[in-house]
Amino acid sequence: MQDIGMSKRAEQAYSFDDVAIVPARRTRDARDVDLHWKIDAVALDYPIIAAPMDSAMSPATAIEVGRLGGLGVLNLEGLWTRYEDPLPVFEAIAAVPDVFAATRKLQEVYAEPIKPELITRRLEELRASGQWVAGSLSPKNVLQFGHVVEQSTPDFFIVRGALVSAQHVAVEGTPLDLAKFIQTLDVPVIVGGCADYHTALHLMRAGAAGVLVGFGGGARHATLSVLGIEVPMASALSDVAEARRDYLDESGGRYVQVIADGSLGGSGDIAKALACGADAVMLGAPLARATEAPGRGYHWGAEAWHATLPRGWRTHVDTLGTLEQILLGPSHRADGTMNLVGALRQTLASTGYTDIKSFQRAELVLL
Amino acid sequence: MQDIGMSKRAEQAYSFDDVAIVPARRTRDARDVDLHWKIDAVALDYPIIAAPMDSAMSPATAIEVGRLGGLGVLNLEGLWTRYEDPLPVFEAIAAVPDVFAATRKLQEVYAEPIKPELITRRLEELRASGQWVAGSLSPKNVLQFGHVVEQSTPDFFIVRGALVSAQHVAVEGTPLDLAKFIQTLDVPVIVGGCADYHTALHLMRAGAAGVLVGFGGGARHATLSVLGIEVPMASALSDVAEARRDYLDESGGRYVQVIADGSLGGSGDIAKALACGADAVMLGAPLARATEAPGRGYHWGAEAWHATLPRGWRTHVDTLGTLEQILLGPSHRADGTMNLVGALRQTLASTGYTDIKSFQRAELVLL
Amino acid sequence: MQDIGMSKRAEQAYSFDDVAIVPARRTRDARDVDLHWKIDAVALDYPIIAAPMDSAMSPATAIEVGRLGGLGVLNLEGLWTRYEDPLPVFEAIAAVPDVFAATRKLQEVYAEPIKPELITRRLEELRASGQWVAGSLSPKNVLQFGHVVEQSTPDFFIVRGALVSAQHVAVEGTPLDLAKFIQTLDVPVIVGGCADYHTALHLMRAGAAGVLVGFGGGARHATLSVLGIEVPMASALSDVAEARRDYLDESGGRYVQVIADGSLGGSGDIAKALACGADAVMLGAPLARATEAPGRGYHWGAEAWHATLPRGWRTHVDTLGTLEQILLGPSHRADGTMNLVGALRQTLASTGYTDIKSFQRAELVLL
Amino acid sequence: MQDIGMSKRAEQAYSFDDVAIVPARRTRDARDVDLHWKIDAVALDYPIIAAPMDSAMSPATAIEVGRLGGLGVLNLEGLWTRYEDPLPVFEAIAAVPDVFAATRKLQEVYAEPIKPELITRRLEELRASGQWVAGSLSPKNVLQFGHVVEQSTPDFFIVRGALVSAQHVAVEGTPLDLAKFIQTLDVPVIVGGCADYHTALHLMRAGAAGVLVGFGGGARHATLSVLGIEVPMASALSDVAEARRDYLDESGGRYVQVIADGSLGGSGDIAKALACGADAVMLGAPLARATEAPGRGYHWGAEAWHATLPRGWRTHVDTLGTLEQILLGPSHRADGTMNLVGALRQTLASTGYTDIKSFQRAELVLL
Repeated sequence: MQDIGMSKRAEQAYSFDDVAIVPARRTRDARDVDLHWKIDAVALDYPIIAAPMDSAMSPATAIEVGRLGGLGVLNLEGLWTRYEDPLPVFEAIAAVPDVFAATRKLQEVYAEPIKPELITRRLEELRASGQWVAGSLSPKNVLQFGHVVEQSTPDFFIVRGALVSAQHVAVEGTPLDLAKFIQTLDVPVIVGGCADYHTALHLMRAGAAGVLVGFGGGARHATLSVLGIEVPMASALSDVAEARRDYLDESGGRYVQVIADGSLGGSGDIAKALACGADAVMLGAPLARATEAPGRGYHWGAEAWHATLPRGWRTHVDTLGTLEQILLGPSHRADGTMNLVGALRQTLASTGYTDIKSFQRAELVLL
Repeated sequence: MQDIGMSKRAEQAYSFDDVAIVPARRTRDARDVDLHWKIDAVALDYPIIAAPMDSAMSPATAIEVGRLGGLGVLNLEGLWTRYEDPLPVFEAIAAVPDVFAATRKLQEVYAEPIKPELITRRLEELRASGQWVAGSLSPKNVLQFGHVVEQSTPDFFIVRGALVSAQHVAVEGTPLDLAKFIQTLDVPVIVGGCADYHTALHLMRAGAAGVLVGFGGGARHATLSVLGIEVPMASALSDVAEARRDYLDESGGRYVQVIADGSLGGSGDIAKALACGADAVMLGAPLARATEAPGRGYHWGAEAWHATLPRGWRTHVDTLGTLEQILLGPSHRADGTMNLVGALRQTLASTGYTDIKSFQRAELVLL
Repeated sequence: MQDIGMSKRAEQAYSFDDVAIVPARRTRDARDVDLHWKIDAVALDYPIIAAPMDSAMSPATAIEVGRLGGLGVLNLEGLWTRYEDPLPVFEAIAAVPDVFAATRKLQEVYAEPIKPELITRRLEELRASGQWVAGSLSPKNVLQFGHVVEQSTPDFFIVRGALVSAQHVAVEGTPLDLAKFIQTLDVPVIVGGCADYHTALHLMRAGAAGVLVGFGGGARHATLSVLGIEVPMASALSDVAEARRDYLDESGGRYVQVIADGSLGGSGDIAKALACGADAVMLGAPLARATEAPGRGYHWGAEAWHATLPRGWRTHVDTLGTLEQILLGPSHRADGTMNLVGALRQTLASTGYTDIKSFQRAELVLL
Repeated sequence: MQDIGMSKRAEQAYSFDDVAIVPARRTRDARDVDLHWKIDAVALDYPIIAAPMDSAMSPATAIEVGRLGGLGVLNLEGLWTRYEDPLPVFEAIAAVPDVFAATRKLQEVYAEPIKPELITRRLEELRASGQWVAGSLSPKNVLQFGHVVEQSTPDFFIVRGALVSAQHVAVEGTPLDLAKFIQTLDVPVIVGGCADYHTALHLMRAGAAGVLVGFGGGARHATLSVLGIEVPMASALSDVAEARRDYLDESGGRYVQVIADGSLGGSGDIAKALACGADAVMLGAPLARATEAPGRGYHWGAEAWHATLPRGWRTHVDTLGTLEQILLGPSHRADGTMNLVGALRQTLASTGYTDIKSFQRAELVLL
């Protein structure tokens, strides 16, 4: 704890940029590294979930991520459930030259209401692919559309907002009771974002199969500018990993997956997230760089189209290669944007670890 | 305390950029947040005072801020009390292309003397609007023009300088005795800027209804370059909040409002200021971005036109929208410049607080 | 140790940019400074080894470095052992205008297999010059080509990879057993890069005459972006210097040379490396700036041409002068890029030291 | 002390940019501030010495600084003592467009030998003005030209090099024995630069009237790049101020002036230097910005023309106004470059001090 003047104290918090992984005295063959990840009944080839963001995930790209060994998640309150055919809308967003005008355009196109029948139809498209089916809603839409989602019996229900708590208090109306909602569902629920020990612990107690750590959606700087709120990811993950351990003990053995969601610019950040205690990562911008990405070289999150208080921008991203090249390589760039899985495998090999769980103990330094 | 070499020690001080607010385990509905603020007999919809700076406040914009629920303050030693019709002067300032030439232009136009009759007339214009009437003088002009202001019985008298102390010492002449001045006035006085515990405590003892913390007027960098003086705002507010608590005790219950005045670039900084202990904020640059602002896309403070030692620049600001949009939204930008009140409401909701006083206890991290 | 959240701790690590050498109360004549360095049976005029990187070292430049008093090292798995005449390949690399396209070009030209007969021929060219003969392989090529190198009986065998450990573990195949390899060789072996106490100690125990500290090859930022791995050099050297001292004790007097390899931008960094505990430095980019350098104004390391996960870029370097001017001066630039040896001599003189060993005790400050 | 890895420790050092002066609870009238400074028998209006750098000081500008109340110092081994008429040389230096070519031009023109008769003539020009007469040599030229300077009986002899020690050791030749030299002179000697407690203490014991702290001449970054040496000024001044105090005690009352020489970009830095313990400052770049400055918009120090290892650049500086405006105002810029004396007066007034000696106790914060 540091003193900020005479009446306030604060902990120093660290972002991924503040830390690095250090080599250990043993190295291993990359072929001996095992990246498999299991959450609830689902086993994936590696611990990567695609973020349910319109710029990255269409039904087609969500299916493709599944085919490549990860988990695709469709945003069930985005353009695909507001528009029968959202492609012209994506085109219109990409056509706006100016970043400020883009905010207004996003506010405009997302004013279109969500159609329950489109939620059902999109989930059927995913189901038809044979891949795992996962869709997301924000907390404020769960009461209205949660049962629609439930009827399609997806494999995962993601409840994802900028800041989610298990104790949302409202004087008027009925707020979402996350614990009750999760317990009545047959589907495993992943919920977040959160960024501190107590919120995470409450979400674990509410029955979540996984908690998302971070604000998600590339909106970190905007959230800091608009709300003054930020929790740097390295510290946040370390705190939530402690909540996981404490909850594991208090629950007599229920292991809740900790999923880093935000500030993950490339493969180096993915490795750091795991070394800080995450079990898996949720990726937005890195996948929006795929040739198949619906965003056509642009990336935005749900914060970017808030009607009265947008907290994110439409940002430009380079289009680098196919989803397969981005996830599995080969890479032709030395910046951590391609062959994300190969890079993670190499980091574990270089530091002598064979699996994610043991890699969470990797040594860090502060830069 | 850190050692700076062998013979000097210093505390680490923190600016708003060094800190962030962290979420708590509870969230609330933004509709349940109460931002009302009371200073002396005056109740405002939210704790925002417009800074008495010519680039932002004309009689018309001061009235408009009041109409929108805040408190407008007119600079009573600026262009509106030096010129019968200052509009051509504003035009001339905006017409200077070069920032260095602008300093000379400011020095030139502010060489025109202050007219007591214009002070009276401007205050009458404010009074006629039905909104709260508030005007400011710098300490050096209080002796000469204070009584002129007093005769108009404004609702607030703001004594605002770059660095104000309750113990100004002069060998020759009669310096302003702030305590005596405040006690003889019928009008509540807000006084500053100050930046440390002791100065603030003395200003509180002198009878101020509120103390301004900070140098004000966007002149922070220039003050550091020219004088070597700076007190980062997060630490300064925390120190002055401690003085407020100590004075509350020693006075047997007089609560002096702590008002952050400076380094407030947008809504994120406003939230941080309150979380560091401020009761309210005084805004310059954010309001100079209004379409109604007299500065026409430029912003400057009183330091910028000092005749022999200017300590601030005429800076360019983007013109973003009406005062109403800037204060109350809706926002079309994710940078904290619009819907300042909505953003503050959202920060409190996201961190689980329903009022400013409890939000002062919000948890911070160091970035 | 600092807390990174509740479940993780880390040491603060320092790079050369974080430290500076401080003057002492005595100064000396630069002429009285003795920079001679001895490793195994070899005595050099100053403690500088040229890095075996294709952009800097051809047979001709390796010989020239020797003639000038340092030690040249040829990369025995680079373009000179893949191509009979690599000059057109160097031209082709330099002709690619775009940095991203350059990565693909490097991947392409380095796909050509290594020819054992070219290894032998290049070493013969070096031998014919009368200078010390030194060549390098990466660990993964030692098993296949190590005996070819050995047959040419070079004066030094450098085993150099991005991250080398004495305990490489592989489930399948036979990994390189460094200790056994070194013990069977008649030639002294320099091995690295490593970056921590334990790895360095194991490499010392394996019989290395010198250990390379750092990732080498200008790939620091890329390694951090791609793998999340970094060990800032000032701290890494200090750690490995401690291993040297401990191994000196446990071995009853075997002094293993600690050689800084990486992050050495110019003469200031060379001085800092020695003051952090290094006995010598291995230079890549500084020598790639020579008019004789094969890279023709470009510089790259082995990480830059990895087939599926490149971790370095082809970077542009200014061509400044001859190898002689760069190493021995005179300098016409005040940026530490020329007269590297003269600068080092001046640093020792300015801080009162007459030899490298005592200069390792020089006082540092944190900037 | 911080650990840099396992075998090295270092103190954190602070530059002027790391610190700021904080206001105190008392303010004063600027008219009540007394800036007079006395060194040996000489009283100046304010504690400012002009640095003996060719770009700033000609005989004419040295005289003008004296006329304005400060102390001008002429470089006695620069262009004015190498050339009968140096004006064409200054023109030639300014005419070189490229910064790298400028280094070669400086090396070329300073290859011209120093003429003893010109030393005598320049000192006579200064004497004729009626102002204080002060000239400088570097330590390496004192043995050869010191007696020439002495014969002209200047009021001050400045011995100024990049790094000066009282214990220069040389195996061959006779090094300068500063203590003996100073004791045999009738003229008070100011000597430096130094940057640490021990060197400063030895220079004080050698009999110096003042010690220069810092590397001088704007060469800080180049010295760091080339030699790896730097001592941030805030810490260095604090250390040397401690040496002053200890020497005051051990000498039974001899007070040696501590003069900050380097990193002084403007008036804010001057104030910080005094608040860190300096008694006075020596200014180069700020005076090179004068219309009268011989450098014609360029600035360089003696390090910039070293024949084999230059450690400074010819840098561009804006030409802002006359020496009088720069020193005494009025200022038309809010960046600390004009009205240096007025700014210093204002800093003392704003923080409640009336003289430099008490201002050395001013409170600092770390930014």
